[in-house]
Amino acid sequence: MKILLVPSGFKESLGAQQVANCMKKGILNVLPHADIVSVPLVDGGEGFTEAMVKWTNGSLHDVVVTGPINQKVAASIGFLGHSTERTAVIEMAAAAGLKLVPRAQRNPVKTTSFGVGELIKAALDMGAERILLGCGDSGINDGGIGMAEALGVRFFDKNLLRIDAKKGAAVLKKISSIDISARDERLGNIPIDVACNWHNVLCGSNGVARVFGPQKGATERQIFELESGLEHYAALIKEAVGCCVRKMPGGGASGGLGAGLHGLIGATLHSRYDVIMKYMDIDEYLQETDLVFTAEGSIDFQTPRGKIPAEVASKAKAYGKPVIAIAGTIGKGASINYHHGIDVFTSILQSPSSLEQAMEKTEDWVMECTEASMRTVLVGLELAASVPFPFTNGGKVS
Amino acid sequence: MKILLVPSGFKESLGAQQVANCMKKGILNVLPHADIVSVPLVDGGEGFTEAMVKWTNGSLHDVVVTGPINQKVAASIGFLGHSTERTAVIEMAAAAGLKLVPRAQRNPVKTTSFGVGELIKAALDMGAERILLGCGDSGINDGGIGMAEALGVRFFDKNLLRIDAKKGAAVLKKISSIDISARDERLGNIPIDVACNWHNVLCGSNGVARVFGPQKGATERQIFELESGLEHYAALIKEAVGCCVRKMPGGGASGGLGAGLHGLIGATLHSRYDVIMKYMDIDEYLQETDLVFTAEGSIDFQTPRGKIPAEVASKAKAYGKPVIAIAGTIGKGASINYHHGIDVFTSILQSPSSLEQAMEKTEDWVMECTEASMRTVLVGLELAASVPFPFTNGGKVS
Repeated sequence: MKILLVPSGFKESLGAQQVANCMKKGILNVLPHADIVSVPLVDGGEGFTEAMVKWTNGSLHDVVVTGPINQKVAASIGFLGHSTERTAVIEMAAAAGLKLVPRAQRNPVKTTSFGVGELIKAALDMGAERILLGCGDSGINDGGIGMAEALGVRFFDKNLLRIDAKKGAAVLKKISSIDISARDERLGNIPIDVACNWHNVLCGSNGVARVFGPQKGATERQIFELESGLEHYAALIKEAVGCCVRKMPGGGASGGLGAGLHGLIGATLHSRYDVIMKYMDIDEYLQETDLVFTAEGSIDFQTPRGKIPAEVASKAKAYGKPVIAIAGTIGKGASINYHHGIDVFTSILQSPSSLEQAMEKTEDWVMECTEASMRTVLVGLELAASVPFPFTNGGKVS
Repeated sequence: MKILLVPSGFKESLGAQQVANCMKKGILNVLPHADIVSVPLVDGGEGFTEAMVKWTNGSLHDVVVTGPINQKVAASIGFLGHSTERTAVIEMAAAAGLKLVPRAQRNPVKTTSFGVGELIKAALDMGAERILLGCGDSGINDGGIGMAEALGVRFFDKNLLRIDAKKGAAVLKKISSIDISARDERLGNIPIDVACNWHNVLCGSNGVARVFGPQKGATERQIFELESGLEHYAALIKEAVGCCVRKMPGGGASGGLGAGLHGLIGATLHSRYDVIMKYMDIDEYLQETDLVFTAEGSIDFQTPRGKIPAEVASKAKAYGKPVIAIAGTIGKGASINYHHGIDVFTSILQSPSSLEQAMEKTEDWVMECTEASMRTVLVGLELAASVPFPFTNGGKVS
């Protein structure tokens, strides 16, 4: 039997690759000779570069860039393996991720995206003809001014004095004009595809400061300061390049980095799974497989709105393949997923436990839950020998 | 498709009948026309009488008897429907169950089994030709002296003064002789089959006082008092009727009631599932079905030692039927069950939760878990159309 594993990671507990490994073990416990293909799916956040490189048999290259609190951090630039163009893959989290901001220093008005610009520059220096940039797990809120400055964009105050954009969101309100004339000239010729959360916008009541500020350590006062700073910044971008980033889908991604990437660098923002699915192209695997397993930390009424299990299921259904979804938690309204291509979802939990206790056991439980699902599928396969069932051709002369 | 549901109850949360109802709903959600037979299995404890009567289309009759703290309680006597003899069915828990002892009054040296004797007497009065008596969920520890007294057995102290056996285990040590000469004479002619836990013995390090005393509210001192009282009692029974009940299987059932039933009343003790399976006879259902679902509150390494899912599975496997087990908790070493006829086990849990939270959701979760299992079986049935599988005859000319 051919089985395709297309899991997402379990947030805060297991990465997508680890989830895939556990699922594979669970299946092999029952079917030692199963033909299993694993395609662990990442969003644009942490692990994105490595996963894309691994998936395409590409290469990884070490670089040192400026971190979100102006420290030096080691990051990676990847180059995809299965590409006709020389396509670099980078993730913003490697240079400006929340993980790089020590808890005690989580001040969202001071952190900078400067290192993301350095990563882009390094990719260009290494001869990239196209750049794929993943957003997610960010620790910054500067709207991408740091990133833009690293690539030659200049910011001035009302006295036409140069502003140091590395100082973070705190300087947004002091900016009076933006000059893109000295921007790295290679940017005009190299397409940059950004994989980001399509639902994140820069301004308004669902703006990035209000929605994500708190988890980056912002106080209510700082959220207000960030909101007005980003609103002002959106107006400046409109003035400088004529494009409105206030509410564009993905403009609020990674602390407004999306808006800066599009407005000041000319990058194209994509819904993260669209671009990842395009680069990863699971269609050929779906065509070949008999059965699809997907997984996500939580499955609920929101899953059909662009989460991995639903995306995978809708593609799988185009080829008529059955989809089993493994979840940590089954949340409110999950049964709606039965109308979105997921044939069955099941939780890994085995005993009453707190979230922390469950997280300690996630590896074993993912494995055992996948094993149990596989065993149940086999019950059905066995039954086909004796039960007349509309979906089978058991016993029919072909 | 023909589906047989043979669940046990989920202790403290759902009775076996309710579990069966939830499972049935879950299957009907997927297969509205499934041919479902429910055989909720009870042990000898609470709900035993009702389940046996329901199962056999028998009748229930109200009686009032003496409760464990000498209160009046309403109980039922059942008569089986599918029986050539007039077979009464009663449960000890209806007259002397733990539920009938308010938490503040849980004093195991004072509670009495007197009402159990009254139930037996009432069954005899109603013309029973055979009595099936369920043990389990008891709130007493008197070794059955109360029960015996209600049926005419008399206990004397060393001065040959009559002892009031309704006073509970506290009087055990004062007993100097037992006189069965005035015992209800019908008892000699009417067989009494007792369904009890075969692993419960009266005396020794695994004796009922030590193992079950604590949950009936006994202090360490009381446990010691009970132990020596029951040891003395065993010696008296041996003296009175020549039979040794110290370590006989089931002798410790229901606070030593088993020993009294056998030693003083002449009842036959049976392993609870043996006798229940005999009276319920699920074999004909197993032969007819395509798929078996069973269920229990917990599945772990102990399940193969006589718990319902394993008993059901071993019978089902004699007919080559697949068995899916639904559990509240999957405990340590559960995978051993894969070697005892259970094809797959799965937990109903859907989110990190305490036992209390999980118990509140047990009904929904049992239903949804059964639905998910059924959906997974259908995935296998569908797959049979396309996957060559050793267990199927899909595509073969028959």
